[in-house]
Amino acid sequence: MALEIPEVVINRLPVYARALSELAAAGEAVVSSQALGELLDVTPAQIRKDLSYFGRFGKQGRGYNVHGLLAKLREILGIDRQWHVCLVGVGRLGQAIAEYGGFRPQGFEILAAFDADVAMVGKTVGGVTVHFIDELESFITSHNVDIGIVAVPAAHAQAVVDRLVAAGVHAILNYAPISAHVPRDVTIRHIDPVLAMQSMTFYIKKGEGGGK
Amino acid sequence: MALEIPEVVINRLPVYARALSELAAAGEAVVSSQALGELLDVTPAQIRKDLSYFGRFGKQGRGYNVHGLLAKLREILGIDRQWHVCLVGVGRLGQAIAEYGGFRPQGFEILAAFDADVAMVGKTVGGVTVHFIDELESFITSHNVDIGIVAVPAAHAQAVVDRLVAAGVHAILNYAPISAHVPRDVTIRHIDPVLAMQSMTFYIKKGEGGGK
Repeated sequence: MALEIPEVVINRLPVYARALSELAAAGEAVVSSQALGELLDVTPAQIRKDLSYFGRFGKQGRGYNVHGLLAKLREILGIDRQWHVCLVGVGRLGQAIAEYGGFRPQGFEILAAFDADVAMVGKTVGGVTVHFIDELESFITSHNVDIGIVAVPAAHAQAVVDRLVAAGVHAILNYAPISAHVPRDVTIRHIDPVLAMQSMTFYIKKGEGGGK
Repeated sequence: MALEIPEVVINRLPVYARALSELAAAGEAVVSSQALGELLDVTPAQIRKDLSYFGRFGKQGRGYNVHGLLAKLREILGIDRQWHVCLVGVGRLGQAIAEYGGFRPQGFEILAAFDADVAMVGKTVGGVTVHFIDELESFITSHNVDIGIVAVPAAHAQAVVDRLVAAGVHAILNYAPISAHVPRDVTIRHIDPVLAMQSMTFYIKKGEGGGK
């Protein structure tokens, strides 16, 4: 069944979950698809359709139970648990990633960082110890690392991705500006602000808005 | 016509352009949709369909002219020119953005940064001078700023977005973890590594790969 769910739907679920978290924190018990849609600038129909892939939520005309739907989305997404993460590359970008405080509260714990620069080995960045890159595979195996973050220069990124995959990582967050290749059983997401910029200038040029 | 082009297509064009740049740098004159698709892990049919929105490229069986298609994509996307950018927020994240070397070579020049912290005003971060936030609107007007980057805490992000929009910015790159609202004539893209992580764990949990 999971294979039938479009990836764009999966990509929207974390946004819904975040909005529901905010509503829960604000003490809201119930939310309509209309109200949720207005919060997120999406149509109520899209929300209802996206959620329909996973079962029936909410009662006609009564909206969604905020806590119940949030718990269900967290379970569906697998974000109701801790994930083991490793970071490869602790240059300027990698250091900023290690120091970023947003991962840990959401269950993504960066257990270790790796770099080929021996001058960095043994240092601590954002509370994360830097290991020599040759220890990558053994660390991934011994610590059951699920997710790898790639923050190395473009020229080295595919090789690092290949090593992460060979060592058993199932998901990769890639900050290097390349279209890295992964096998079908590995998931990859790219964080690339330049591509995001370039996808907006089309709309500026045309003098019209794009999407969200 | 532009309104008919799906946003997902627009979002893929910068990826094609980057691949063509790499092929051009490697001395390649012609590329087939098959070869381009293999480079990017997308189907040749998708590439052909995406490009078909913009006219006819390449000759049947002879592939695309790398330089010609690249020039055309750069023109379509509006990335064949310089864009004026301002950055709001020079905390840890904003500083990393200002120091990031990837924007300028692609035509995105960060002309100034703004912060509400007077201790930061007058400092230079990554070659960018920090101004007091109250100067935001006059700077945008006087320097024809096209794009705003938002790197302030979540609680302040919507207010900053509103000010950027009111001052005439047409596109916003938002790093704050909120679903910011913009009018229909303004384009916004979100850089959110936590949401990217959360969209991958669904696939890890299911023990299968997701997309690219």
